[in-house]
Amino acid sequence: MRHDQRRERLRATAAERGLDAVLVTDLLNVRYLTGFTGSNGALLLRTDRADVFGTDGRYTTQAGTQVPDVELLVDRATVSALARQAVRPRSGGPGARRIGYESHHLTVDGLRALESVLSDAAAGGTVPELTSVRRAVEAQRAVKDDDEIDALRRACAVADSALAELAAEGALRPGRTELQVGRELDARMLVLGAEAPSFETIVATGANSAIPHHRPDNTELRAGDFLKLDFGATVDGYHSDMTRTLVLGHPADWQREVYELVAAAQAAGRAALAVGADVVAVDSAARDVIVAAGHGEHFTHGLGHGVGLEIHEAPGIGQLGAGTLAAGMAVTVEPGIYLPGHGGVRIEDTLVVTDDTPELLTLTSKELLVL
Amino acid sequence: MRHDQRRERLRATAAERGLDAVLVTDLLNVRYLTGFTGSNGALLLRTDRADVFGTDGRYTTQAGTQVPDVELLVDRATVSALARQAVRPRSGGPGARRIGYESHHLTVDGLRALESVLSDAAAGGTVPELTSVRRAVEAQRAVKDDDEIDALRRACAVADSALAELAAEGALRPGRTELQVGRELDARMLVLGAEAPSFETIVATGANSAIPHHRPDNTELRAGDFLKLDFGATVDGYHSDMTRTLVLGHPADWQREVYELVAAAQAAGRAALAVGADVVAVDSAARDVIVAAGHGEHFTHGLGHGVGLEIHEAPGIGQLGAGTLAAGMAVTVEPGIYLPGHGGVRIEDTLVVTDDTPELLTLTSKELLVL
Repeated sequence: MRHDQRRERLRATAAERGLDAVLVTDLLNVRYLTGFTGSNGALLLRTDRADVFGTDGRYTTQAGTQVPDVELLVDRATVSALARQAVRPRSGGPGARRIGYESHHLTVDGLRALESVLSDAAAGGTVPELTSVRRAVEAQRAVKDDDEIDALRRACAVADSALAELAAEGALRPGRTELQVGRELDARMLVLGAEAPSFETIVATGANSAIPHHRPDNTELRAGDFLKLDFGATVDGYHSDMTRTLVLGHPADWQREVYELVAAAQAAGRAALAVGADVVAVDSAARDVIVAAGHGEHFTHGLGHGVGLEIHEAPGIGQLGAGTLAAGMAVTVEPGIYLPGHGGVRIEDTLVVTDDTPELLTLTSKELLVL
Repeated sequence: MRHDQRRERLRATAAERGLDAVLVTDLLNVRYLTGFTGSNGALLLRTDRADVFGTDGRYTTQAGTQVPDVELLVDRATVSALARQAVRPRSGGPGARRIGYESHHLTVDGLRALESVLSDAAAGGTVPELTSVRRAVEAQRAVKDDDEIDALRRACAVADSALAELAAEGALRPGRTELQVGRELDARMLVLGAEAPSFETIVATGANSAIPHHRPDNTELRAGDFLKLDFGATVDGYHSDMTRTLVLGHPADWQREVYELVAAAQAAGRAALAVGADVVAVDSAARDVIVAAGHGEHFTHGLGHGVGLEIHEAPGIGQLGAGTLAAGMAVTVEPGIYLPGHGGVRIEDTLVVTDDTPELLTLTSKELLVL
């Protein structure tokens, strides 16, 4: 979907709420609505369609290329300048009287500055009203359009290839450290076209694999140990997310049992991804498998989360989540069992909910890989 | 300096301002004061020294390791839980009555949630007062202690080595693209021990080098062109920042002239880094050299900025800056001349202000490198 179509959808939301304009300040929301990737920018979206994109002088050229279809305003004090623009009377009528803003993003100091600008601009007249639109853009972002799903596909493909190459080259072998493996995985993703890793890559071996968010350290990989890799690539701003757990050498019976149990739970979670499914029920579909096997207390986190311009975004899939799935939502399914002091297994895919079976984006095999 | 010593300094500031406690919510400030590197954490610092560090269940183990010397509170609603802790009467006396918070970081929604928690906790009694401490921790962070300077030294060394290795391997040669060079530079920094690049690496060749913040694209490197590289490594959370401009093949006279001029301005800027120097005067020291040569309009940005846990932090060194330098400040000096359509040169170092001559952390040669 083109950026102007995304803006039209937000414009409809603004009109429904009786707003004359929305000041979008969250940089990822600005990127989603305009295509701008710089580090400072904001969008004034107006229901009369006279939108203005604001940034500072460093980005004049970039804004011209990335946001050719929105009027450009260059000003160091970007948000204040846009606010003044919003309230200025226009040939077609008066300036904005009700302005939406993102109260989950704007800071307390930011709101005060905005109020002060609006009060000055009113010059004794009626000061425009500021109303929070909360997470209106984030709600829109939860359902991905074709361009976004394409970026996610490419991001997942980079992560798949990076792991396949490292495995083929023998980089995952006893004696190497978690940190070495993590850095090589990150470096390989960059060479394969990622802008950056999606998050701090998790490499956890042996007992460390029982820590859900272990930071890689100098622990050496050893034969017979679990090796848990949780990582992703960012491509065109979109994040992939995948976890695979391997065994170096021959798995013990307990390792195979735990692995098969997590794999079964993960399959059940994937099977539950359907349009209209309640996120709590999706979590339960996977969790019930683990609880039934007596490991409920060892699955200590939610089943998954949305991915896109952020590594964690709506919808959250867990017992504390709310809402239902819609076609086009991109989510992870990542159950785990963690046995403190022994080891843990997590298996995670990124998928897109469709009217049919979900599309699997992370294509690395989920067979227990024995290296 | 140990984290507890940093907390003591903030405690003194809080006491001076008549506060009973400070709620630190900016994650980098939390890291600076505690050592915690996770993605969710906040610190309640109390003038009576009964500090509490809050995070959620994912980080219980990590918090125990990284923040062993502060009482731990695990709660999904971290900030609200800390606020309730702050106002609870203690054996030594009443709960906090004046609480500082970071209004430049806390969102509008965050402040409302905090006010609501405090009002509930007061249960009909006097509601504690919330007062902004603004950038108190950032002001403290502007002067680096020995541990921080050591991390910056290591971050700069990684960037130096990465560039030296790529140059030695012939990776910077005609026919390669900006994107390829940028990704290899990033990948090499990771292999050499960086956690991540400091920012989106700038590789700009030919006419692109005239764009101060050019994003690398598929432009090929060509003999006789400028090649501008602006990049850095993050080590232990600290960011290095360096720009070098090279020529592939033999430089033309105009290239040599522009280069020598920028090099002279940069040397003048470095020489002006002294304890007590006004940041505007430091900028002028370099800028005057460029203006005197008739290129004032082609130096379109400030001279430099502080670096540390953020790539841009206090102090700003430019005509719009304010304040003076102090021993221990880590800053960049990065004048540039940009000739639109032709090419540009920027030379940038990271240095530490000392009572003597500044310590140069980026050691790559500034001779015009001809590859």
